[in-house]
Amino acid sequence: MLNNKMTELLKIKYPIIQAPMAGGVTTSKLVAEVSNSGGLGMIGAGYMTPIQIRKQIQEIKQLTSNPFGINLFVPNDFNVIENQIKLSNQILDPIRQQLHLHQKDGFEIPNFREVFEIFTEQIKVVMEENVPICSFTFGIPSKEVIAELKQANIILMGTATTVREAVENELAGMDIVVVQGSEAGGHRGNFIDGNQESLVGLMSLIPQVVDNVSIPVISAGGIMDGRGLMASICLGAKGVQMGTAFLTCLESGAHQVHKEAILNANDDQIVLTRSFSGKWARGIKNKFILEMQKNEKLLPDFPVQNTLTHDIRKSSATQNNQEFMSLWSGQSPRLAKNQTVESLIKSIIGEAQKLNLGI
Amino acid sequence: MLNNKMTELLKIKYPIIQAPMAGGVTTSKLVAEVSNSGGLGMIGAGYMTPIQIRKQIQEIKQLTSNPFGINLFVPNDFNVIENQIKLSNQILDPIRQQLHLHQKDGFEIPNFREVFEIFTEQIKVVMEENVPICSFTFGIPSKEVIAELKQANIILMGTATTVREAVENELAGMDIVVVQGSEAGGHRGNFIDGNQESLVGLMSLIPQVVDNVSIPVISAGGIMDGRGLMASICLGAKGVQMGTAFLTCLESGAHQVHKEAILNANDDQIVLTRSFSGKWARGIKNKFILEMQKNEKLLPDFPVQNTLTHDIRKSSATQNNQEFMSLWSGQSPRLAKNQTVESLIKSIIGEAQKLNLGI
Repeated sequence: MLNNKMTELLKIKYPIIQAPMAGGVTTSKLVAEVSNSGGLGMIGAGYMTPIQIRKQIQEIKQLTSNPFGINLFVPNDFNVIENQIKLSNQILDPIRQQLHLHQKDGFEIPNFREVFEIFTEQIKVVMEENVPICSFTFGIPSKEVIAELKQANIILMGTATTVREAVENELAGMDIVVVQGSEAGGHRGNFIDGNQESLVGLMSLIPQVVDNVSIPVISAGGIMDGRGLMASICLGAKGVQMGTAFLTCLESGAHQVHKEAILNANDDQIVLTRSFSGKWARGIKNKFILEMQKNEKLLPDFPVQNTLTHDIRKSSATQNNQEFMSLWSGQSPRLAKNQTVESLIKSIIGEAQKLNLGI
Repeated sequence: MLNNKMTELLKIKYPIIQAPMAGGVTTSKLVAEVSNSGGLGMIGAGYMTPIQIRKQIQEIKQLTSNPFGINLFVPNDFNVIENQIKLSNQILDPIRQQLHLHQKDGFEIPNFREVFEIFTEQIKVVMEENVPICSFTFGIPSKEVIAELKQANIILMGTATTVREAVENELAGMDIVVVQGSEAGGHRGNFIDGNQESLVGLMSLIPQVVDNVSIPVISAGGIMDGRGLMASICLGAKGVQMGTAFLTCLESGAHQVHKEAILNANDDQIVLTRSFSGKWARGIKNKFILEMQKNEKLLPDFPVQNTLTHDIRKSSATQNNQEFMSLWSGQSPRLAKNQTVESLIKSIIGEAQKLNLGI
């Protein structure tokens, strides 16, 4: 009953994808365990170097013979504005003090050419290592990159937050489109529409996208159990991509403080912020978000702000202090559990089968 | 298959409630036709005088013998700040000029005591006329009001945007709770949580609420067809409340310009604004919203701002000019159709039965 065009295309048993969370969450163990349990494990490689990527791919191949995937960030040009950086550091310095960090004068501000070169290298590794599935966030790669990957028989998945973005993904040749509802944790994937316009809830987003594209649609955002899977299927999706639900699993590499923060959070504590990275993202409200809130819109672009807050996030994590970490979470923290990947997937399928939808 | 505790309680055939949209949308014909078609028609009486309410209830009783309901706004205290009113008028005056309206010096600013007295009168009429179902937005009425209505055997429905608000509704004695997802058109119903925290999508909101209350949960926001109904049921709701889907029906009293704006809108044109009324609400982006955006957060509270913009909204409607009307809409305008209520309800039930969910 749960087999469809999407599971066939990805050669997986269940229509469940583990969201490619960046920043160390998607350990080889997590990715392999998801694939071994019948879902699709994904490496969140957005911030990884080509060397790290190759190493992790090879590790995962040792742990599973099932398909797995990888996600890359499509580089977008960004502004580097001296005054924004100054302002940001003025606000960040008192926070650094609280964490006993040195104030920063100079920064290695990323530049677009470097970011783009890393992306090109990342793509090369994905091809050389024959990763069967590659997904993209923050945009659509160039025609040339898409052609190369398709030539190598790699299944491509794009990310969309509106109908327009989904249609663009289909036109560009993506095999599958992941629609990210406003419920989703972590970074917003919008790349055409503005932030407000792209905050569409899945109840609205899935059917409108399904009516306007012919490739399989995967829903992402706030889905944690069999109820969310079956609701997505009713709305026309072929499967789900789940982040937060996997983040709190035993096999995930998320910091223990992050896992516990989600397990203890309520729905009304999850907010949007651009203070950590310069890009809008959803997570648990903490001191950092509250202190940055007033100036949120004046902060530097992604990835500049991300670079500026790096020391703070890192030191906060080392000190087990949840107040200055980016505690990404979708809007359903009350449904999160600390369990193994296997038991998560089994319980989703069990619940879905109890709902007994004859489609 | 679609009968449950909620349809039993409300004595209706299908688990479909027509949202009580205020401002002239819920004509007697619309309300009666929904109830005659097996759903629950609702009068959006928030802005109506007790005399208007009594007249409409009596009209509807002539048109249907099935149950119908009424919705009232729970009055909340508000600030009247001279400088905010001045600022708002400074921005509104150029718009008035475009519409050939006189500039305004004085205003009849509403005061809380008057608003509260009207509410008390509204409740009296509901009881005297024996309306079988009464729902509330923007808060929970006092214990005394709830006790009186329950004494009269009136079924009570509250509105919630978060788990916390849903729990408060149950504790107060509401028989049913309508959960309003971030997808919903028109005014946000949050009354405890702030605006950002309460913008929870239905995929997250329904299951988290269902897990925390024992009264039936109705989902509202972006639901337009059988897919949305069945998805809601998968997530644990007992039924749906639909606004935009009924607003574009032939029987609705919405302005033709408003109906056409929805029928022509895309998902990425629907935004949140507090510029029309002082309370956050969702509708189609137009000139008014764009011109007010910069100062949005500095505008007076509801209902003060609502009073200030009254002449503009009215004149814009009279001139068939959609640019300065409040074009409320949920996030699924692409799914809207111009059809009769009967055919909308029939097609929802037909689609839902095709999905064939054995629950």
